[in-house]
Amino acid sequence: MSTLVMKFGGTSMAGIERIRAVAQRVARARAEGHAVAVVVSAMAGETDRLVGLCREASPLAEPAEYDVVVSSGEQVTTGLLAIALNAMGVPARSFLGWQLPIRTSDTHGTARIRAIGTDALRHAMASGTVAVVPGFQGVTAKGRVTTLGRGGSDTSAVALAAALRAQRCDIYTDVEGVFTTDPRIVPRARRLARITYEEMLELASVGAKVLQTRSVELAMKERVPVRVLSSFTDGPGTLVTGEDEIVEQELIAGVAYDRNEAKVTVVGVPDRPGVVAAIFAPLAEAHINVDMIVQNVAHDRPITDVTFTVPRTELARARTALEAHQAAIGFERLLTDEKVVKVSVVGVGMRSHSGVAVTMFRALAERGINIQAITTSEIRISVLIAEEYLELAVRVLHSAYGLDAPQ
Amino acid sequence: MSTLVMKFGGTSMAGIERIRAVAQRVARARAEGHAVAVVVSAMAGETDRLVGLCREASPLAEPAEYDVVVSSGEQVTTGLLAIALNAMGVPARSFLGWQLPIRTSDTHGTARIRAIGTDALRHAMASGTVAVVPGFQGVTAKGRVTTLGRGGSDTSAVALAAALRAQRCDIYTDVEGVFTTDPRIVPRARRLARITYEEMLELASVGAKVLQTRSVELAMKERVPVRVLSSFTDGPGTLVTGEDEIVEQELIAGVAYDRNEAKVTVVGVPDRPGVVAAIFAPLAEAHINVDMIVQNVAHDRPITDVTFTVPRTELARARTALEAHQAAIGFERLLTDEKVVKVSVVGVGMRSHSGVAVTMFRALAERGINIQAITTSEIRISVLIAEEYLELAVRVLHSAYGLDAPQ
Repeated sequence: MSTLVMKFGGTSMAGIERIRAVAQRVARARAEGHAVAVVVSAMAGETDRLVGLCREASPLAEPAEYDVVVSSGEQVTTGLLAIALNAMGVPARSFLGWQLPIRTSDTHGTARIRAIGTDALRHAMASGTVAVVPGFQGVTAKGRVTTLGRGGSDTSAVALAAALRAQRCDIYTDVEGVFTTDPRIVPRARRLARITYEEMLELASVGAKVLQTRSVELAMKERVPVRVLSSFTDGPGTLVTGEDEIVEQELIAGVAYDRNEAKVTVVGVPDRPGVVAAIFAPLAEAHINVDMIVQNVAHDRPITDVTFTVPRTELARARTALEAHQAAIGFERLLTDEKVVKVSVVGVGMRSHSGVAVTMFRALAERGINIQAITTSEIRISVLIAEEYLELAVRVLHSAYGLDAPQ
Repeated sequence: MSTLVMKFGGTSMAGIERIRAVAQRVARARAEGHAVAVVVSAMAGETDRLVGLCREASPLAEPAEYDVVVSSGEQVTTGLLAIALNAMGVPARSFLGWQLPIRTSDTHGTARIRAIGTDALRHAMASGTVAVVPGFQGVTAKGRVTTLGRGGSDTSAVALAAALRAQRCDIYTDVEGVFTTDPRIVPRARRLARITYEEMLELASVGAKVLQTRSVELAMKERVPVRVLSSFTDGPGTLVTGEDEIVEQELIAGVAYDRNEAKVTVVGVPDRPGVVAAIFAPLAEAHINVDMIVQNVAHDRPITDVTFTVPRTELARARTALEAHQAAIGFERLLTDEKVVKVSVVGVGMRSHSGVAVTMFRALAERGINIQAITTSEIRISVLIAEEYLELAVRVLHSAYGLDAPQ
């Protein structure tokens, strides 16, 4: 009998009617002969409500107690789904994080799964019982409740699939799969039938929010095939899998964008060794991630400018951190620009094909879109452009790489 | 160091402002030198919300999964109170039902506490940490979550006080203590400084809803002094304790009433042995509690009438159960009356003083109030009267036993 892990997100669990629809999907998978374990999120909005209560109780809520409060949302949906399944004649049982146990590190609020006990689960599933497991939560070696951080339920599902050596982990969400780009911007965006773990990771890191990054990393490490599909429609979704499993590899898998970008230019810094380190040390101390970095070439002057990007939500903190060290760094002034976005193209085909970058730069140049910074990885090229060009740039690139669906 | 268990109900925990007020009370008790364990209910309304979700998922929700869902309300308030305490500099830690553990029977939904593990709790409390424990929940020997039934948090608190051999269990609620009667009916009702366990039990059984019956039974069995006091005002409350601890015993502790009464008269049953059993068997099968029973004396006829009371909320079911057995019982017809109430006087003084009943009957007769049925226990007399006389009867009896506060 093949083992299947099915995971349902917050919108899929938002209310009893939807939970009943989830139960029907689970019943169908079981009827098809799978041994099924289901991982559930809290009802949409519930985790935010619980986090809000903790913050209201104290802005510095102890992480261990925060986890006690916040993990309750998944406990509720776990019990409710077990009830709904039993009500339709499908034997089901809840297994909470501490009951399995889902053993984690003790970094409360952002714990990492270390191991999952599956004996009781396997025993129940072997007799045809559906195991319902809360996502997002775990327990330390000392028996205290932990949570995995936002979006952690995807990771719970993949970790459980790995522990059970499941054939697949199906992640039901509110989109029909992974698309070549955002269909709200490009109506001719296509659902990808397959995508590699590496591409999925790169897309997640540059703004595509289909799967949580850690869950993809784990799936890649454990070689768990993951299928992303919609909880609200019937469709094949997108299979996230190893590169060797994909026969007809496209050059580019998709075009992604990220609005959470802001540009900082540190004007008039001494052009000497160590100055870049002096700039970034205070930002690192403040745990602010710096992304794209451009150091201007100095011409006949002992001073230069350094430009970089930070998450837009961190800009105020970045400014404060730098200004506190103005004398030590020795810069003249800071320029900031929040009206920038990052647009990226991702594809494992880049490894073997040259000319991918040139296509990008040429397509943007033809529309008069100025590139303010560039970063690349082995399978990704990202450019920083003015925000007003976002939609145009995404559409132009989507066409330039031949991703548009036939009309 | 003396050990104190403090318990806060749902209205005391309804929202962060109130939880902060609770934390202040706890901080004060700790500052006075007590080692403190706190037992909390879910926020007012939360348990109803969770029960509603279970019922919506299935009217026949599995009790084991129902408990998983419903117990989450106390988990939330436990974490929030620990956060609020730490925020005001009082070290505090949550201990969930499965963590201590609070070991219970496996009768989900109405589980009974068997034992409470206190090692971790004592260790924490010895170092000055406040232990925060969810009421209402426990765990079976097999490690499944249970709940104790509505109002079970009072029982959790008393059981914890017994396990810790605490000096006292303070139960904070939304009233200032136990009153001689309902102050909404008798403005001159007085708060009792002390009351015996027995009296408290009798009052609870006849409609006074200050403490859950099982918690008082347990307190009596384990000799835990319980204090009932208000979460919203400062006052000494009422101490519930053993009879031997009360020096100046009053004759009557209080006057209680219960509107949840309905009268059933089974008219024209054969006056032969076994007929009463034939009437009550179908009611017992339907788990309907019969309270006061009056069998009319038959005069020169082979048939008689039997009158009894059932909870008003069960009247429809009682009627259905009886009508289904009309032929077997052989009655002519059923008369029902929902406009009746039970008024009771309770006091351990009755054991040693005669004339208590006469005072009651005389006081009611003087006002023209007809008694339709009577039941008594060693320390209680209850009468069934027409509902329209309820307030008058309570006021008259309150005065007749000298319970009115001086003006």
